[in-house]
Amino acid sequence: MVRPGGSAQDLSTLLSPRSVAVVGASGNLESISGRPIKLLKRFGFKGHIFPVNPNHDSLAGLKCYPDIRSLPLSPDVVLVGVRAQLVPGVVEQCSERGVPFSIIFSSGFAESTDPAAQDEILQKARAGGMRILGPNCQGLVNFADSVPLSFSASLDSDKRPLGGVAYVSQSGAFGFASFAMAADSGVGFRYVVTTGNQADLDLVDFGMAFAADPQVRLLVLYMEGLSRGDRFIELLRFAAERGVPVAVLKVGRSPTGQAAVKSHTAALTGEDEAWRTIFRQYGVLEIEDSDDIADLGKIFGPVKTPRGKRVGVITTSGGAGIIMADRAYDLGLKVEPLPRETREALERFVPPYGSTRNPVDLTAQVINDPGSFKSSLETVLDCPEIDMASVVISMITGDSGWSVTRDIIEVSRKASKPMACCWLINNEQGGPFLEELRSEKVPLFASPRRCAWALARLSEWVTMPALPARAPSDPRDPFLPRLPEELTEYDAKRLLARWGVPVTREILCSSLEDALSAASEIGYPVALKVMSPDIIHKTEAGAVALRLKDEEELRNAFGRLLERSLKAMPGARVRGMLVQEMVTGGVECMIGVKRDPVFGPFVAVGLGGIYVEILKDLSLRHAPVDVEEARRMIASLKGFPLLSGARGSVSKDTEALAGMVSRVSLMALAEESLAELDINPVFVLDEGGGAVAVDAAAIRGPR
Amino acid sequence: MVRPGGSAQDLSTLLSPRSVAVVGASGNLESISGRPIKLLKRFGFKGHIFPVNPNHDSLAGLKCYPDIRSLPLSPDVVLVGVRAQLVPGVVEQCSERGVPFSIIFSSGFAESTDPAAQDEILQKARAGGMRILGPNCQGLVNFADSVPLSFSASLDSDKRPLGGVAYVSQSGAFGFASFAMAADSGVGFRYVVTTGNQADLDLVDFGMAFAADPQVRLLVLYMEGLSRGDRFIELLRFAAERGVPVAVLKVGRSPTGQAAVKSHTAALTGEDEAWRTIFRQYGVLEIEDSDDIADLGKIFGPVKTPRGKRVGVITTSGGAGIIMADRAYDLGLKVEPLPRETREALERFVPPYGSTRNPVDLTAQVINDPGSFKSSLETVLDCPEIDMASVVISMITGDSGWSVTRDIIEVSRKASKPMACCWLINNEQGGPFLEELRSEKVPLFASPRRCAWALARLSEWVTMPALPARAPSDPRDPFLPRLPEELTEYDAKRLLARWGVPVTREILCSSLEDALSAASEIGYPVALKVMSPDIIHKTEAGAVALRLKDEEELRNAFGRLLERSLKAMPGARVRGMLVQEMVTGGVECMIGVKRDPVFGPFVAVGLGGIYVEILKDLSLRHAPVDVEEARRMIASLKGFPLLSGARGSVSKDTEALAGMVSRVSLMALAEESLAELDINPVFVLDEGGGAVAVDAAAIRGPR
Repeated sequence: MVRPGGSAQDLSTLLSPRSVAVVGASGNLESISGRPIKLLKRFGFKGHIFPVNPNHDSLAGLKCYPDIRSLPLSPDVVLVGVRAQLVPGVVEQCSERGVPFSIIFSSGFAESTDPAAQDEILQKARAGGMRILGPNCQGLVNFADSVPLSFSASLDSDKRPLGGVAYVSQSGAFGFASFAMAADSGVGFRYVVTTGNQADLDLVDFGMAFAADPQVRLLVLYMEGLSRGDRFIELLRFAAERGVPVAVLKVGRSPTGQAAVKSHTAALTGEDEAWRTIFRQYGVLEIEDSDDIADLGKIFGPVKTPRGKRVGVITTSGGAGIIMADRAYDLGLKVEPLPRETREALERFVPPYGSTRNPVDLTAQVINDPGSFKSSLETVLDCPEIDMASVVISMITGDSGWSVTRDIIEVSRKASKPMACCWLINNEQGGPFLEELRSEKVPLFASPRRCAWALARLSEWVTMPALPARAPSDPRDPFLPRLPEELTEYDAKRLLARWGVPVTREILCSSLEDALSAASEIGYPVALKVMSPDIIHKTEAGAVALRLKDEEELRNAFGRLLERSLKAMPGARVRGMLVQEMVTGGVECMIGVKRDPVFGPFVAVGLGGIYVEILKDLSLRHAPVDVEEARRMIASLKGFPLLSGARGSVSKDTEALAGMVSRVSLMALAEESLAELDINPVFVLDEGGGAVAVDAAAIRGPR
Repeated sequence: MVRPGGSAQDLSTLLSPRSVAVVGASGNLESISGRPIKLLKRFGFKGHIFPVNPNHDSLAGLKCYPDIRSLPLSPDVVLVGVRAQLVPGVVEQCSERGVPFSIIFSSGFAESTDPAAQDEILQKARAGGMRILGPNCQGLVNFADSVPLSFSASLDSDKRPLGGVAYVSQSGAFGFASFAMAADSGVGFRYVVTTGNQADLDLVDFGMAFAADPQVRLLVLYMEGLSRGDRFIELLRFAAERGVPVAVLKVGRSPTGQAAVKSHTAALTGEDEAWRTIFRQYGVLEIEDSDDIADLGKIFGPVKTPRGKRVGVITTSGGAGIIMADRAYDLGLKVEPLPRETREALERFVPPYGSTRNPVDLTAQVINDPGSFKSSLETVLDCPEIDMASVVISMITGDSGWSVTRDIIEVSRKASKPMACCWLINNEQGGPFLEELRSEKVPLFASPRRCAWALARLSEWVTMPALPARAPSDPRDPFLPRLPEELTEYDAKRLLARWGVPVTREILCSSLEDALSAASEIGYPVALKVMSPDIIHKTEAGAVALRLKDEEELRNAFGRLLERSLKAMPGARVRGMLVQEMVTGGVECMIGVKRDPVFGPFVAVGLGGIYVEILKDLSLRHAPVDVEEARRMIASLKGFPLLSGARGSVSKDTEALAGMVSRVSLMALAEESLAELDINPVFVLDEGGGAVAVDAAAIRGPR
């Protein structure tokens, strides 16, 4: 299904067509069906342009055709912007004519009151082997080859800096608007694609193609939803292999946003927590807004990567420098005192009322001594204990402003370390400097915070751990199909045992005699539990007796338990009585599994009792996780000190718990009909003593 | 010391002088001592300008004087920008001449290698009753009266929209740079003051004056430190009484930033946690960066306040609308489905592939039907279930862009509810629209997130609880002076008891006989503890025996404890043996006190044991707190369910705990020599059972 490397070629005709037909082409070059022709000409598109409109003989100096059938050749791409009702007819003609790609701008399909119409055009396209971008999209632009297949007003600007950002957006309006703002702030793009309803081609198709392009330095995705999480994860793996950072703006985090996504484009949204876990686990740079796209574009555009998180701050304003240091600290960067040699070197340029410490405060003195600025910058960048530099300028104007501008550009060109800049100045006096810096691709940010944010994301990406290994294929068949439809604790434990998860020794008994013999086999004291698919909360129903220390206690408990639980839950179907070993000591933990509709199973581990119930102290991962990742999950718990031997207590067998988490995650992957699993408590015994599942509940998914 | 209402008059001569002398005035109108003259003329300053320079007869068309003594009259304000060494002489002359105010731009004082020089000029000024702004500042501007007393390049712009923001900044460079950027984005200012080293006049002086000005709608402070927290709190109270929101950018949160603050301007910084607690408790809008200043200025400028947190989002891009909804949700705003009547009314304007839900998605359809935009806006603002509106526009250009611009301005003018706008567009195509919106004071933000942030701060301010009442004066004298210099648990408990805090019944004994009789008076079982100022960690030193159930156990423990603890801590001075009642049951909590150098005592409450040690689950307030506030502190703990009766347990006497927190906070205020206090554990018994301090430690401050 997923074709790493292959997709790039598949889409090359769409991205660089030799001929483009525009259906419903209008003489009004400002209409949706007129603007693509205007833009193609304006960009200097080198292929053929075929306007299609039965009411014209020629349009914008081009010969016009009455329909697709009458075109002199089958165009590589057909652009469709006609009314929704007319789209199926056009698609049919394209299909007949063997057109490989069409881009459908028209609205009124899955996002509207007529979702069936979308299936209709998709079927007609498939009949002729045609791929569709859209409907309800604003098309695409390939800046590298000067191919605009769009009507977006954002393309009217002549400012089209070519660069390394590939941007794929489900939303047409937001996609092109945020592109335009980013381009305005100096970001260079290679591709912008808006996918709309994604009836056929989707984000992942374009993502694969762009991650394969060696000129792409950053892949940005605006996503509303996905139907298949596995393809998205394959894209993330492929991009990671190719060294291409992926930034994702996933909308619909809020309840309102999620509802809006559902009504806006028909796609499964998945749960917010699931998405964020996927992002963390598979190395996605999560972003939230249009300015994030612009700021990431600036910092990932130049091919300079820091080796760590240490920032040297150079400023002309002590105050602004401190703000930069504070914001950098908030975001996990390090702004530490410079080493003595560097400070001594800086003393030649920094006045006594400034500072050589870091932030290096040159003060407004740079106005009187312009040379000091450049030398200070070079000195800080040369410092071996600095991984990147942040330059924060205040109101330096006139000749001094130009001098600073030139110095920044020159140093930035030569520097092997990343350098980000923030110039706090009004447009009237600073505009020309900023314009010059942008045109020279100096990463320029609107505030110290944005500057720190971009540097933090860059260093986050550089220091990101390797992606988790692909799921090992387990030869074991799923066991769940062989268990009863409604699952009791006994069934859930059999499932766990089957996958090598240690569970309490226990025997399901149908009579008191069975129970007595089971107890003598297991050894007293024992626990006794009523097994019934109708009794979920066993303790509350009085269906559990603990610490039965001999035959007499077991005899007494047997009848009492049955009686009490049938009173609490009349008519409950009893499958038997479970005689179970008593496990004592250890710390109570829990392991959970939940299957997400988009991404499949996730596994969680936490401390039990109040920790999970009140403090929600849980660590979540997409399955599977290996033992090493499981160790990291456990160590990340706030209550971890309780397991690692805090307050003088004995440290617990976290190795055994990690092994259990990993095995449960493999099981979750293989047991495809398992919707939810809750092992609570798991007793984690003293180091070397192991861990054991004491209670468990499992739920099947809807069939 | 603090003069509410009075300060405003005190500074009126400085803010609106009838005459200004510029010492060291330069013929070069671009130098630090030349620019103020240029700016005064450019702003059309109506008073006298006296250049002072022995080398000129006239300057910039003005008669020039050799020194202050030779001026025809004593000027209201003298601006001083000469070299540091020359400043004391100038100040002396001003003082002799009876000048009421001087502004010293010169650097090289407390922030530099020569801190004594600052004391010198301060003494000379005080001798003549002159007040000083600075040194090491960039002066001030009073936009209302067109008075620039500064050299900042930011004032060269002719864009000077007068408005309701008063801004006081310790940093000159950052202050004027961030002012310039905010003014650029449409924010109107009334005053900008930079205070530099604050040798005399400081942030609080100007803050009091501006909060008293009925034209001021927002007071913004950039702060590095403070020497007296009480004056700052008085300012916050005064501003709250006057209904003026106060936004504070407090720098030095990070360790590096704090070190930089210390070297930059000499001021006590206090601890970050203390500042943030003060901000929360006294209604400060905490901000972090230059763009926060601009964005708050935009939203607090118009006098429109929402009644709650419900936002109606109107957009031309479904995607951008969802981002707005998501970011609003992140920040605690509510974007909820509109009521049926409103949705029905909207259906006339919204196409079927749009949405009337909220976000209201008009789609790019507004291009074809411009009237629909204005009507939709009005409909949403009219909805009684909406408190404010957020308009998010994408790439709407040309005539449609102008139509949208006009509609927003018109609706914004009439609307009684706040309306914030975000237009995602590049400058080339959208610049003129944005410029028009800014000049009409429509709050315009660079991204949905910034828009949501500003609305969230506005609604946060509107819904802010009243400030805590002023500290009641307690007639009790401090008791700590009557206790031993080094305090044991016994002393700390006596202190607590003196202030009405329930402690364990306990008797300090010097012999076994005393101990036996004490135990029989208290009643067995008892605890026995060695009291020594040298033994802080009693349990670790083996200096505690618990649950001694009869005379025999007490006899055995008495000698053993002494022996063990003297072995653990040889030479420890033993003050006696403490016989103490055993308290059982209840939940372990802790109450702490810490005195901050700037703000005085803070009180903390938390659950004891692992909760405070591992989970850092604490609630902190500036003292004093009344019982109601103490209740809120307790209820805000993550572990609160353990006190309120979660998991079927009995609820605990949180009322008693709240009373104890409040009493401890009053004590902390009165006992001025108390540096730290740790009551741990406090046993909180079942509801109605009270709470009791079981162990306590206290530390005196340095004398």
